[in-house]
Amino acid sequence: MSDAYAARRERLREHCSASGVDAALVTRASNVRYLTGCPPCGASLLLTRERALLALPDDLPPEEGGEHLLGPDIGQLLVPADTDTALAAAEAAGRLKVLDLAVEEHDLTVRRHRALAGVAEGVRLADLGTAVEGMRVVKDEHEIADLRIAAEIADQALSELLESILVGRTERHLAMELERRMIDHGADRAAFPVSVGTGSHSGLEAHQPTDRRVEEGDFLTVVLGACYRGYGVSTARTFVIGAAPAPWQVELHRLVFRAQRAGREALGPGVSESVPDLAAREVLQAAGHTDSPAHPVGHGIGLEIREAPRLGPADMGKLDNRVPVTVGPGVHLPGRGGVRIEDTLVVRPLEEGGPELLTITTKELLAL
Amino acid sequence: MSDAYAARRERLREHCSASGVDAALVTRASNVRYLTGCPPCGASLLLTRERALLALPDDLPPEEGGEHLLGPDIGQLLVPADTDTALAAAEAAGRLKVLDLAVEEHDLTVRRHRALAGVAEGVRLADLGTAVEGMRVVKDEHEIADLRIAAEIADQALSELLESILVGRTERHLAMELERRMIDHGADRAAFPVSVGTGSHSGLEAHQPTDRRVEEGDFLTVVLGACYRGYGVSTARTFVIGAAPAPWQVELHRLVFRAQRAGREALGPGVSESVPDLAAREVLQAAGHTDSPAHPVGHGIGLEIREAPRLGPADMGKLDNRVPVTVGPGVHLPGRGGVRIEDTLVVRPLEEGGPELLTITTKELLAL
Repeated sequence: MSDAYAARRERLREHCSASGVDAALVTRASNVRYLTGCPPCGASLLLTRERALLALPDDLPPEEGGEHLLGPDIGQLLVPADTDTALAAAEAAGRLKVLDLAVEEHDLTVRRHRALAGVAEGVRLADLGTAVEGMRVVKDEHEIADLRIAAEIADQALSELLESILVGRTERHLAMELERRMIDHGADRAAFPVSVGTGSHSGLEAHQPTDRRVEEGDFLTVVLGACYRGYGVSTARTFVIGAAPAPWQVELHRLVFRAQRAGREALGPGVSESVPDLAAREVLQAAGHTDSPAHPVGHGIGLEIREAPRLGPADMGKLDNRVPVTVGPGVHLPGRGGVRIEDTLVVRPLEEGGPELLTITTKELLAL
Repeated sequence: MSDAYAARRERLREHCSASGVDAALVTRASNVRYLTGCPPCGASLLLTRERALLALPDDLPPEEGGEHLLGPDIGQLLVPADTDTALAAAEAAGRLKVLDLAVEEHDLTVRRHRALAGVAEGVRLADLGTAVEGMRVVKDEHEIADLRIAAEIADQALSELLESILVGRTERHLAMELERRMIDHGADRAAFPVSVGTGSHSGLEAHQPTDRRVEEGDFLTVVLGACYRGYGVSTARTFVIGAAPAPWQVELHRLVFRAQRAGREALGPGVSESVPDLAAREVLQAAGHTDSPAHPVGHGIGLEIREAPRLGPADMGKLDNRVPVTVGPGVHLPGRGGVRIEDTLVVRPLEEGGPELLTITTKELLAL
C-alpha cells in the first residue's frame, strides 16, 4: 500500500505545481490518512517538491506511527503531545525555504491559520481548497475492496438482528447490539452512531435511539454502517413488527422502495449529480409527498461518512465511474412513523453491469 | 432553567459592551448550548444588545428545538437543513444594523469566516475569542448537580462490571458493556469512547480497546465517563486480575495512587493551575519515572470533556472555586503495562471541606 500513498502524494504535488505553489500543508484528518495511511491522531502532512514530512504527536502507540506504515520516502517529525502538529510542519516549511504554502482554509480555524502565518518564516500562505477531497472522490479498487468488507459487516450484523426477538426491546439496546455485532465481525467501529427508530420514530434519517420499546404493529427503521480500515458505508432498512403489516404500511414501504430503486437506477458515469435525487423525489411527489424529502437523496462515502459529491436536486456536477455513493430516500409521517431505505453503491458503467450494490440485505418488507 | 440561560446571555452582553462591539455570533456547539440549552445540532446564536436570535436547522425533531426550551426572550430563525446557520445569523446581523460583530475565530474555519464577512452587510467582524469558554470555567450548582449524576452513573457501571467475571473477555467487549451500562443507568451517552486496556495495554490514557482478552495476572485499566444533560465526567481505575498481585504491581499501583492523591490534595481556590501537576509529577519522579507523564495531570471538564483550565506544569492561572477538574496521573511501562487513576473533582475551599470528589469508586488495588 505504501506505493499507493506515494502515488497520491505525487498527484497532489502535480496539483501544487499547476497552481503555482511550492508546497502543501494538509491538516484535515481524512486527507492526511488518504495521503499517508496514518489513522486520525492530529497529524499534519507537509508536502514540498522534494520531501514529505508527517508531523505526529510523540505519544502514539507504536502500531499507529511507525515507518513500516509510512514507507521510506516520508519523514517523521515527532511533536510533543498537546501541541499543534500543523505549527511544527509550518515551521519546517520555513526552514525548508518554502515560498508559497497552500493550506486547507476549509479545515483551519481563523486562529490556527494566524498562528501558522506567525511561525512559517518567509512563507506566504495560499489556499489549497478541497484539492485532496477532489482526489478522493473516485476510489481505486483497494478502497472499494475495503468498502465491500465494511458493507458485508453491516449486512451480517443486520441479518443476525433480524433472527432475534425484537418485541419489547428498546431502541437503545438494539442500536448497541448492532454496534457490538459489527465490531465482533471485524469493524474498526460503527461508521456513525447506529440509529434505531420504532413506531412514530421510524422513517427518520438520524433518529437518536430512545428507551421506546418495539411493539407489535410498529414500523422499525435501522440505519447503520461499519467502518473498515477507515472506510465507511451506510445502509437503512425498514421492517414491520408482527404477523401482518397494515395496508398503509405496505403502501408506504412500496412507495419508498420504488423511489429508492429509481434513485439507484439513475446512477451512472456522466450522469448529473441531481438526477438520482430528482428520480427518487418524483416518485414520492407523484404519490402526494410534496414536501419530502428535505435532504439530498444521497452523497459520496468513503473515509468520511458524508463526502463529495452531494446528490441533491441542485447539484450540477457529473458522476464519475468508481464513485461510491449512498441513495436513501425516506418518508416520515409525523406521529405515525415512516420508511427509509438506503444503500451504498459504487457508480459503474452499464458495460460493467451498472451500479454495484454493496449493502445487499433484502429490501422486502419483512414482518418480524 | 431558561432564567439561568438568560442570565448567561446577559453576562455575554456585558462582555461585548465592555469590548466595544454591538453583538456576538456564537457558533461553537458547547457555547451555544451553554447560552441557550440547545443540544448540539449546528445552531448559531446571534446576541445583540436588544435581541437573542437562535438560527436552527429546520428539520430538528420537536423535542430538540421548541420555544419551551428557549424561553420567551429568544427568537428562532429556522434555516434549511444542509445550509450554515451561522450565515443566516450573520445576514440577520446585517439587517439588524449591527456595526461590530464579534465571532469565534477559534471555531470558524478561514473559509466560513470569509463567507460570513461576505453576507453580513455593513458589519465589521471582530474576534470574540474564548469569552464564552471563560464564562464556563466556574460552574453553578445546577451544572455541578448534573456532573454529580454523571459521576454516579459512571461509578454504578464500573461497580457492576467489577462484580462480573472478567477473565477471558476482550477489551472491546468490556468497553461496550460499560457503555451499555451507563446508558441503562440514564446517561445521554458515554462522554468519550470507553477505554479498557489489559496486560501490556494497561496504564495508557486513551488506549483503543482491542481483541486482547483479560488474563490471570493482568493489570486492567478502565477509563470511562458518562454524559448527563450534556455534562461529562472522566474517571480511571486500575485493577489486577487473579488472586494476588505481583510485588511490582502492588508497588506501581501504590506509587500512582500516591501521585494522584498528591494532585487531588493540591486543588484549592487561588492555587496555581500548575501545582496539582507538579505535586503528582514530583511523586512519580522521586520514584525514578523521570520522563512520565508527558500529559498534564488534568483539565477542566463540563460541557466538553476537556475544557479550560488545563492543569499542566506550565499553566500559570489560578484555580477558582467551583471549577470541576480531572486529576489523573499514570505510569505505563512499555511491554509490561501500568497504572492510571483518575477522578473528577470540584475545586472547593477548605471551609467547605476542600475538593469535592465526584467519582467515588474505590482506588484500592482490587484483585478481581
